Amino acid sequence: MSDRPRPVIALLTDFGLQDHFVGVMKGVIARICPAAHVIDITHAIEPQSVAHGAFVLEISRGYFPPETVFVGVVDPGVGTNRRPLAARMHGSWFVGPDNGLFSWIWEGRGSAHGDRIIVLENQRYWLAEVSSTFHGRDVFAPVAAHLAAGIDPADLGPEVSELVRLERSRPQALPDGSTCLHVLHVDRFGNLITDLRTSDLPNEPELVTFSVGDFVARGVRRDYATADELVAVAGSAGYVELAAPGGSAAQITGAGVGATVVVRLRAAARGG
Amino acid sequence: MSDRPRPVIALLTDFGLQDHFVGVMKGVIARICPAAHVIDITHAIEPQSVAHGAFVLEISRGYFPPETVFVGVVDPGVGTNRRPLAARMHGSWFVGPDNGLFSWIWEGRGSAHGDRIIVLENQRYWLAEVSSTFHGRDVFAPVAAHLAAGIDPADLGPEVSELVRLERSRPQALPDGSTCLHVLHVDRFGNLITDLRTSDLPNEPELVTFSVGDFVARGVRRDYATADELVAVAGSAGYVELAAPGGSAAQITGAGVGATVVVRLRAAARGG
Amino acid sequence: MSDRPRPVIALLTDFGLQDHFVGVMKGVIARICPAAHVIDITHAIEPQSVAHGAFVLEISRGYFPPETVFVGVVDPGVGTNRRPLAARMHGSWFVGPDNGLFSWIWEGRGSAHGDRIIVLENQRYWLAEVSSTFHGRDVFAPVAAHLAAGIDPADLGPEVSELVRLERSRPQALPDGSTCLHVLHVDRFGNLITDLRTSDLPNEPELVTFSVGDFVARGVRRDYATADELVAVAGSAGYVELAAPGGSAAQITGAGVGATVVVRLRAAARGG
Repeated sequence: MSDRPRPVIALLTDFGLQDHFVGVMKGVIARICPAAHVIDITHAIEPQSVAHGAFVLEISRGYFPPETVFVGVVDPGVGTNRRPLAARMHGSWFVGPDNGLFSWIWEGRGSAHGDRIIVLENQRYWLAEVSSTFHGRDVFAPVAAHLAAGIDPADLGPEVSELVRLERSRPQALPDGSTCLHVLHVDRFGNLITDLRTSDLPNEPELVTFSVGDFVARGVRRDYATADELVAVAGSAGYVELAAPGGSAAQITGAGVGATVVVRLRAAARGG
Repeated sequence: MSDRPRPVIALLTDFGLQDHFVGVMKGVIARICPAAHVIDITHAIEPQSVAHGAFVLEISRGYFPPETVFVGVVDPGVGTNRRPLAARMHGSWFVGPDNGLFSWIWEGRGSAHGDRIIVLENQRYWLAEVSSTFHGRDVFAPVAAHLAAGIDPADLGPEVSELVRLERSRPQALPDGSTCLHVLHVDRFGNLITDLRTSDLPNEPELVTFSVGDFVARGVRRDYATADELVAVAGSAGYVELAAPGGSAAQITGAGVGATVVVRLRAAARGG
Repeated sequence: MSDRPRPVIALLTDFGLQDHFVGVMKGVIARICPAAHVIDITHAIEPQSVAHGAFVLEISRGYFPPETVFVGVVDPGVGTNRRPLAARMHGSWFVGPDNGLFSWIWEGRGSAHGDRIIVLENQRYWLAEVSSTFHGRDVFAPVAAHLAAGIDPADLGPEVSELVRLERSRPQALPDGSTCLHVLHVDRFGNLITDLRTSDLPNEPELVTFSVGDFVARGVRRDYATADELVAVAGSAGYVELAAPGGSAAQITGAGVGATVVVRLRAAARGG
């Protein structure tokens, strides 16, 4: 511990903040690793939506310090025989249920020395009493706190070579030459975050149109300062977002998570 | 202070998070006890519901480190002559209004040496200016921070022997042999937490049925992996909960806090 | 740093808590200044409402420790040419967009030595990659963390003498001798916070009536213990608030932010 100034534990759950769930997880952490600095990524993952959690975790993790211990709990299978695990990737630990929540990060990792997946079996690092419905408190928080406190991860359980994979949403080519995107997330401002990576935009993004129902956004903008009703923006998460300047794109278009956005390439203006 | 690594202050209020209330309480704490580690239990206690706050505090406190200073503020009587107090129990301090918020914890404590109730009268430990409507900021946060910083609790005010008691919700036997439970809390997932302790379940919980209006749950399960519309689960808070696997029991049944659940013992299958 | 025990960074944004926005800002801060103690004032400022943010920041800042670094992000002009700035006032730093968010605090400051406004131009203190829509993460959080870590503020950019001013809501005298107040904020309890400072109340506040539509509150109270439907209270933020004891004034009156309240001075009882 002496060379690690202050361990960071980052939490992402679908627990919301209206209950005591997140609070008692932090209490458990404080008991085991008093020095830990706990940061909430968000607790508003759509209840039971592993894909939503996987997406938000993926776009967030890169902004945290090396050696952060991430705890992700979106866990519809709690109490069944789904495995609890800790995965080492990107120089950090990810602790939570083996249901796909971490699989996109696993697939996207490089081949760093030391990356591995451990099944949590050693109950010595859990709370003494383990409920069947709240492993965030009873298993994942204590394991994360022990990792932050510097235990040998190998003590947590046996290493395995695979974790449960979750299929990810991708843009789909349509027969007519257009492309179909999917809304992965709606943010506080009503922006619709799609599954089109900004790095996959065509070379001339000003020639692209995005249709959400009857609403059309032309080109890709860098800001919201426009009179257009709907605009496409190269979003801060690395994905194309649809926004309504001064309003909510979700409200205006009626689109939500899972809605589709059709992308077309406009013909370039005829040169002359 | 030298032997206490990092004092923990845990907050539970009905202040919500949309205002500055909780933020300024933490600012006040940081001024008085910069080393304090502040943990939010929740701020979503139903506005002015002392019973709801008492329940959530009771099921949460055991997960925090020894010597945690709990601040509980659900305070409809703020500005009147209700007393402000600090109570020592379970090796921790509880700071807040004397309106029953801490009475269940007081009743359930052992007889540990040093347990006591102090009425906060010494204004030296309050903010210089005290409003009539926000004692969370002006009285309770500063007193908690001073306790966390290690002052002598006896300096806070005189000791008294009693605090205001709050009646607690309990299962009621009905004339027909069934039992009536009450919903104490609805969580983020729509689970209905009842006032039946799991430790009070009959020996054969698989023979029990729980009725919420027209909906019936049979037996007590350990997980949500079932096709049943409504199930009873031995909840993580130590109380029986009604859940709708993959949905919201609150939404499906229409039941909320205060609703009743009727428990019946089914006849055991005739042996053969 | 050696003489500063634990730098405090206080956050106020309109980001809400359902997204990863606030979480990744904290991740960025933890990378740059691991010792920083981050406190949320609130993240529920009305989306894009600079005036709402300015008000809540103004009534909150005085409760934080000296040398707190405040980060305020309500930033409808993000991505345009609005300036990012850091302002020194009241012995603290305020970091955010130059759109009026800090102007009331600037106007209300004394003339302390060292007060100044710096335009953030030195990209060495920003994230390496800066998005066009999330300067909270890419510019303001890192600059605040560097300030908290003790860099020389002069390194951040050039000093300027002015910032964008925001007009503030004030009570208006009406032709009939009454005064028109405006609701600046509705809190969690439905209390309506007006723009009338309690210090501007007349000498005999018991003679004042406050009308919200058809509802009338008589006099100014110190607590909510009354049978009156609507009461005026000398609020904890230093402004007169209208409250409905045991209920929500916003709900009962239908008034929200921007609504008007008419104040009249009742004739004093005729002496005899």
